[in-house]
Amino acid sequence: MSEQATRTESDSIGEIEVPASAYWGAQTQRSLQNFKIGGERMPTQVVRALGIQKLAAARANIKLGQLDKRVGDAICKAAQEVIDGELDDHFPLVVWQTGSGTQSNMNANEVIAGRANEMLAGTRGGKSPVHPNDHCNYGQSSNDTFPTVMHIAAVRLITTETIPKLKRLADALQEKAKAFDQIIKIGRTHLMDATPLTLGQEFSGYATQAAYAVARLEGSLPRLRQLAQGGTAVGTGLNSTQGFAEAFAEEVSAIVGERFQTAENKFEALAAHDAVVEASGAANTVATSLMKIANDIRLMGSGPRCGFFELLLPANEPGSSIMPGKVNPTQCEAMTQVCAQVMGNHTAVTVAGSNGHFELNVFKPVMIYNLLQSCQLLGDAAESFNTNCVAGIEANEERINQLMRDSLMLVTALNPHIGYDNAAKVAKKAFAESKTLKQAAAELDLLSQQQFDQLVRPEEMLGPRKAD
Amino acid sequence: MSEQATRTESDSIGEIEVPASAYWGAQTQRSLQNFKIGGERMPTQVVRALGIQKLAAARANIKLGQLDKRVGDAICKAAQEVIDGELDDHFPLVVWQTGSGTQSNMNANEVIAGRANEMLAGTRGGKSPVHPNDHCNYGQSSNDTFPTVMHIAAVRLITTETIPKLKRLADALQEKAKAFDQIIKIGRTHLMDATPLTLGQEFSGYATQAAYAVARLEGSLPRLRQLAQGGTAVGTGLNSTQGFAEAFAEEVSAIVGERFQTAENKFEALAAHDAVVEASGAANTVATSLMKIANDIRLMGSGPRCGFFELLLPANEPGSSIMPGKVNPTQCEAMTQVCAQVMGNHTAVTVAGSNGHFELNVFKPVMIYNLLQSCQLLGDAAESFNTNCVAGIEANEERINQLMRDSLMLVTALNPHIGYDNAAKVAKKAFAESKTLKQAAAELDLLSQQQFDQLVRPEEMLGPRKAD
Amino acid sequence: MSEQATRTESDSIGEIEVPASAYWGAQTQRSLQNFKIGGERMPTQVVRALGIQKLAAARANIKLGQLDKRVGDAICKAAQEVIDGELDDHFPLVVWQTGSGTQSNMNANEVIAGRANEMLAGTRGGKSPVHPNDHCNYGQSSNDTFPTVMHIAAVRLITTETIPKLKRLADALQEKAKAFDQIIKIGRTHLMDATPLTLGQEFSGYATQAAYAVARLEGSLPRLRQLAQGGTAVGTGLNSTQGFAEAFAEEVSAIVGERFQTAENKFEALAAHDAVVEASGAANTVATSLMKIANDIRLMGSGPRCGFFELLLPANEPGSSIMPGKVNPTQCEAMTQVCAQVMGNHTAVTVAGSNGHFELNVFKPVMIYNLLQSCQLLGDAAESFNTNCVAGIEANEERINQLMRDSLMLVTALNPHIGYDNAAKVAKKAFAESKTLKQAAAELDLLSQQQFDQLVRPEEMLGPRKAD
Amino acid sequence: MSEQATRTESDSIGEIEVPASAYWGAQTQRSLQNFKIGGERMPTQVVRALGIQKLAAARANIKLGQLDKRVGDAICKAAQEVIDGELDDHFPLVVWQTGSGTQSNMNANEVIAGRANEMLAGTRGGKSPVHPNDHCNYGQSSNDTFPTVMHIAAVRLITTETIPKLKRLADALQEKAKAFDQIIKIGRTHLMDATPLTLGQEFSGYATQAAYAVARLEGSLPRLRQLAQGGTAVGTGLNSTQGFAEAFAEEVSAIVGERFQTAENKFEALAAHDAVVEASGAANTVATSLMKIANDIRLMGSGPRCGFFELLLPANEPGSSIMPGKVNPTQCEAMTQVCAQVMGNHTAVTVAGSNGHFELNVFKPVMIYNLLQSCQLLGDAAESFNTNCVAGIEANEERINQLMRDSLMLVTALNPHIGYDNAAKVAKKAFAESKTLKQAAAELDLLSQQQFDQLVRPEEMLGPRKAD
Repeated sequence: MSEQATRTESDSIGEIEVPASAYWGAQTQRSLQNFKIGGERMPTQVVRALGIQKLAAARANIKLGQLDKRVGDAICKAAQEVIDGELDDHFPLVVWQTGSGTQSNMNANEVIAGRANEMLAGTRGGKSPVHPNDHCNYGQSSNDTFPTVMHIAAVRLITTETIPKLKRLADALQEKAKAFDQIIKIGRTHLMDATPLTLGQEFSGYATQAAYAVARLEGSLPRLRQLAQGGTAVGTGLNSTQGFAEAFAEEVSAIVGERFQTAENKFEALAAHDAVVEASGAANTVATSLMKIANDIRLMGSGPRCGFFELLLPANEPGSSIMPGKVNPTQCEAMTQVCAQVMGNHTAVTVAGSNGHFELNVFKPVMIYNLLQSCQLLGDAAESFNTNCVAGIEANEERINQLMRDSLMLVTALNPHIGYDNAAKVAKKAFAESKTLKQAAAELDLLSQQQFDQLVRPEEMLGPRKAD
Repeated sequence: MSEQATRTESDSIGEIEVPASAYWGAQTQRSLQNFKIGGERMPTQVVRALGIQKLAAARANIKLGQLDKRVGDAICKAAQEVIDGELDDHFPLVVWQTGSGTQSNMNANEVIAGRANEMLAGTRGGKSPVHPNDHCNYGQSSNDTFPTVMHIAAVRLITTETIPKLKRLADALQEKAKAFDQIIKIGRTHLMDATPLTLGQEFSGYATQAAYAVARLEGSLPRLRQLAQGGTAVGTGLNSTQGFAEAFAEEVSAIVGERFQTAENKFEALAAHDAVVEASGAANTVATSLMKIANDIRLMGSGPRCGFFELLLPANEPGSSIMPGKVNPTQCEAMTQVCAQVMGNHTAVTVAGSNGHFELNVFKPVMIYNLLQSCQLLGDAAESFNTNCVAGIEANEERINQLMRDSLMLVTALNPHIGYDNAAKVAKKAFAESKTLKQAAAELDLLSQQQFDQLVRPEEMLGPRKAD
Repeated sequence: MSEQATRTESDSIGEIEVPASAYWGAQTQRSLQNFKIGGERMPTQVVRALGIQKLAAARANIKLGQLDKRVGDAICKAAQEVIDGELDDHFPLVVWQTGSGTQSNMNANEVIAGRANEMLAGTRGGKSPVHPNDHCNYGQSSNDTFPTVMHIAAVRLITTETIPKLKRLADALQEKAKAFDQIIKIGRTHLMDATPLTLGQEFSGYATQAAYAVARLEGSLPRLRQLAQGGTAVGTGLNSTQGFAEAFAEEVSAIVGERFQTAENKFEALAAHDAVVEASGAANTVATSLMKIANDIRLMGSGPRCGFFELLLPANEPGSSIMPGKVNPTQCEAMTQVCAQVMGNHTAVTVAGSNGHFELNVFKPVMIYNLLQSCQLLGDAAESFNTNCVAGIEANEERINQLMRDSLMLVTALNPHIGYDNAAKVAKKAFAESKTLKQAAAELDLLSQQQFDQLVRPEEMLGPRKAD
Repeated sequence: MSEQATRTESDSIGEIEVPASAYWGAQTQRSLQNFKIGGERMPTQVVRALGIQKLAAARANIKLGQLDKRVGDAICKAAQEVIDGELDDHFPLVVWQTGSGTQSNMNANEVIAGRANEMLAGTRGGKSPVHPNDHCNYGQSSNDTFPTVMHIAAVRLITTETIPKLKRLADALQEKAKAFDQIIKIGRTHLMDATPLTLGQEFSGYATQAAYAVARLEGSLPRLRQLAQGGTAVGTGLNSTQGFAEAFAEEVSAIVGERFQTAENKFEALAAHDAVVEASGAANTVATSLMKIANDIRLMGSGPRCGFFELLLPANEPGSSIMPGKVNPTQCEAMTQVCAQVMGNHTAVTVAGSNGHFELNVFKPVMIYNLLQSCQLLGDAAESFNTNCVAGIEANEERINQLMRDSLMLVTALNPHIGYDNAAKVAKKAFAESKTLKQAAAELDLLSQQQFDQLVRPEEMLGPRKAD
């Protein structure tokens, strides 16, 4: 950085050089220097939500007569640029900083003041006419701001990305359930051959899991829609203005286009982030669902000669330069890796969420980093899995039918007609001699092949029988 | 077992000796011998729920004309004894058995048949006139029975134990919030002294966490109230009777006194146990809440001379034979240990829930074992913590007041009157010379002691100010 | 308890009634009443290790001249009875108690004093002539005693159960590797058909995993062999005698027959239980290994008609009354459930281990409860899996050979002879027309069937080629 | 990308446009398009390790006469550029791709071939004269390459970053232990006042934890030093040359300057990544240690007026603009957040590690991503914590001494002199009347102040007493 042009900024500790091109100020710079840990930047969704938070706070303060209009308007414009992603490069801090997120809050205050000052006074940075603390952070504290931003970022991501993408996956699975409605296949329990079902029924289970995934995420939203803003440093709201908390929540709702409320209890909202743990728990359940679905699909696609091979998965990449049909289930692999990550993230969120002290939980950045990663990955993986795999899945009907017909389990249909003992004989003979049930029954002179075909009808084994 | 009297029972593998006093039969005995793993028996709540399931199935089958009344009535009576806990000793199997819970389902079938046979024919055990499979398990499969039992057991435990006990804890915390309403104390953020709040406000945060804990568990119930019964072996319902699934759910609702429905999709209900993962996720969030509360309380009780010592916790056991006031926060310790366990159990449930294959998840016993342990422990610990700790907590008002008065953070109240710079001087002097703010202000000739007392009023630092 | 005969015991809080038949005293009784949480008793291994610890402490104190011989001998005898399991019923406390394990330590002190007093004075219980604190706990504190007991219990269990059982499993897998040495089968990567290997090679991977499992557990022992005893209340050793720590470790080594040392740093040994986290981490790695092995085996056993069915697993229980060959892989299911539990326990141990404060970690009981459960279950499951599954596994050679012969991947062997492009044509034709490679090659007039058989030799695809 | 200049590359699926400036080819491009999941790129350490792997493979193949020297030398040069980080921008793939890491292996093959072709033929990209598969990947498969790269990356990071940084932290803590050797402070167990120890003794516990952290990571290295290379597709080594595996390991050792061996069993090395789980387990244990240390330090720094305030932590950032002494323990917060992340990552690694199938574990990218993040974060956080916190910690000796002197626990020293009962009276009076022990003893006429000072000597309470 020695040759880079700099300017001098200051805070209560003293002066410090920041890159001349940066909008940020002294506190951001200090964090950059004091926390050289990993490379994971504060997630973009948090940066954008800081823009929303600063815009909403400025608007509410203007309404409440707490902020000069000229200063306030400049803050609003600069905050909008943050929302629009134009200033992303000016948020260089990593996740592994102070646990209150103070440094990222100050980063936002400094960048917005720095940009507003550029608009109003022509010089980038500084504290006049717009002051990072006195104006951008007016009536706020990092302690209520950062949890507010966490909730805004999470709700936005979940409602605009995760849920819509999961819904599309649920729809795609439901379509397959319909398309595969008439394809009767062998069921498998304990991985062993069992009674038949349709491939459509099997996919209806997956579709239900995916639909419930959406319901589970939605169920975690009500408490995420509560905003801590207005609690200031310890939850009491000292230094904020009566009515600010409510006005702020209204502004955020208007900006985001999603319903938010001011938190019922601000002490809980600063000191604990149970709502984040709860949402992460929903994501974790979604991960278990998607892991099951992706596992089943890759197992059913296994082969082509030595596996189940009941499904034909789309070939998106070269499998092998020699072997046709060597289509690796790469989308399933990406999906299940994402699921493992989400489960891990959930442990991180849980540990972090349980370790608050008194009026503040100071694991805020790590909590939101993990929740957002989980929700982003689940949404993206659902979309990729849907587009590049599920949509193109075809049933290998010939193979499905052959396996189903070969299954010894169909012998159960003979019980009412030739008796349990004879049916068992048929099955045992078929198994021991590697024959079909039909062959075995014929060789035992128990049934002709025509009789067998009349009695063993898998299509009548797909639901409960009528009560007598 | 060599000298123990036995009788001979049999299954399709052959004959086997079982203890003469046991109601169970061959399949239970085989499991006992083949799974010598650990000592954790299938939880009692599962055993009782098996009683409920068998009773409801028998009633539904009788109604649907599928079960002879004499046989059916005997099954109902024996099942009721299982529900009442009279036959607990006859369920000796461990958790670590087949992953479908088949062996525990057969244990229930055998014990109920064995007891019914004793009632009807005078001889314990056996298969006539009541047959474990043909009658007790009529129209059922382990694959739909065991997940049904999992849901019944979980809903019963959560609604009758976990939630009521958490509610009582929430109420007790709310009462403390009220009782401590006027006690102003120092706030702490980052563990550092911050602006004041009331002890009541602090406890209101805990009460809110506990109230949300109840809401979170309730939020997991809708999908737990869905019952897999009627899906039989693979979800199709083969071998069950039309109408059975619905009639069964009605019977269970009547027996338990809680609303249950037949599962929307039986394939999902057998192959995945996302509802269990979801409920465990709720328990996990509750654990993070309770960990925070218990941690805060033990920190505030730390001392008596060298800690915070703002709270006086009840002395339930000898701390030290010498030192009065050495009250160890043992209830907090039991609680936080329980929370760690619940977090661990949740990982186990998550791993297990993600590993289903095709038509069956075969981690059923480990999943329900962990969910039930979590819910039992959370409820019990909440009750113990409430009764033996929270209810008896007293505020150490003198200490609280002294710490609060000593705090340098109160200097913020002087800003509007002597200006920021002078206020800072006061604080710095007080800190450097270990004086009170009042002393420092007086020595700096900035304020008289009377003026100080008029201006520095913590009771006015407890909420937002009126808008101008 | 109203009708049960009682006697009066007392502690510094006052008098309390205990069951007349119990050896325990006031402090145990108080814990029973104050911690009605769950039903999980302090593990038997801990109880027995308390016996060992009290015996070793008494012997060391006698040697150092700190304990009257008559009193000391009586303590030794009573402690031996604890070791021998004769007094198990007198340890009724649950895991969820004070986090230092003080109450279980006092339980041991009271029971041993109570039994010693019975020996010496003829009356059960009481404090004279043998006093629970002054004699049984002489020179000790719960704070050094309980971690000592944790380590003793863990080392004993791991060295006498977990490791030997895992070794036997490793040996059994190695035997299978040898027995299956000549059986060539298809390899599978991404679950898709790949180049061949022998079944023996496949099992050699499992055997290696199992052997490393043993090495990993052994690698965690050195720090578990360090004993906290001698640190007393805070690690300084106040109130213990110089030389006691070392003499104690010698006595424990002699009693257990395993090498123990006094801990290098007693402050670490009381305040952190990283050694337990480390051992649990080893158990967690073992669980991932065993999960993989059990999963592979059940997949290879899947079928009989519609799965891989390369392995025949022993039939230990009735699978289905109709279908021969429906052998459920129940031992694999028990094993994988155990693995999920161990992973969960590890999270619990990790959370607990990270939450110590100052001179004491107060999650001791939950930590040792989980570590012991993990090690017990892994050992037992390994043994059960070995005896009831691995030992009886047979290769389904016909099926293995057929799948391998059918595989299109063998076409790679033709590349050097007919060129890549022609080989690809053969494979594509075989796949598209569901033919064998041999048929396809013949139909394309590229090779005669004899030539094909000469060139496609799977037995030469099992290792690297010689360098030119 | 529409306006970006492109060139055409191809693979077995067909042609595809890649950016003209990119060195990568068709397979990398396809992955980019098919896996739009999250933004987490394959870690740089993996990219560099791919360079090492390709260099070592080329060298070994040249030695074994398998690779034309001109082609081989060009590959070596290009691979060296990858090692040196000059081509980082040409590795654009994300973690969430095929679970074998094939696409990243092909990315390396394509980039190295593309760069080598540029060197030899003047045109970027393409397959001639250097072919990505035939030359760069000669005798290799993604299935042995990627696990090899995982181990190289992990060993390099752990030995050059994590361990040295942890060692420096251990040293710094040890230095503090020495510096604080004479400062006697109150001990705290259960967070309650206990008998004294020195601040140096307390820090010696932390130093021991940090030293063991190093030992634990070192203990995980032996199995990480085993390289899978030479196993090719399924572990047999088909298509590689005899001697290649060993020659390759030699080359890697020479390049990295760390000892590596060829894996004892290649089937284990491809199908399971237990060594990664094991290393992650070590990282997890380190995290529990560091969490404890950071928690203690922030607790001891709490205050300045209303907390423990025994330690003065360096003030690196403005705490509050008003309150001197409001130094937030931000380094502790960053550290504990890192620890939570590492615990979460460990769950992800565990889940991923347990889910391999047959000859391949296809969670490779997610496993190495998490292990590397954990090791990077632990190292960086240790260094930051050391430099910005531990190194600057000062003891607040006055406060430490005052708390210690005030403690009622010192009364234990009077037992031998005035008897237990009188000592208890002193302590109780002092506690009840908020007096010092000395005052209470004097007021009770039990001891003069001089006598008290002679008898109550904390400096003699710091170790075991001499045996009589």
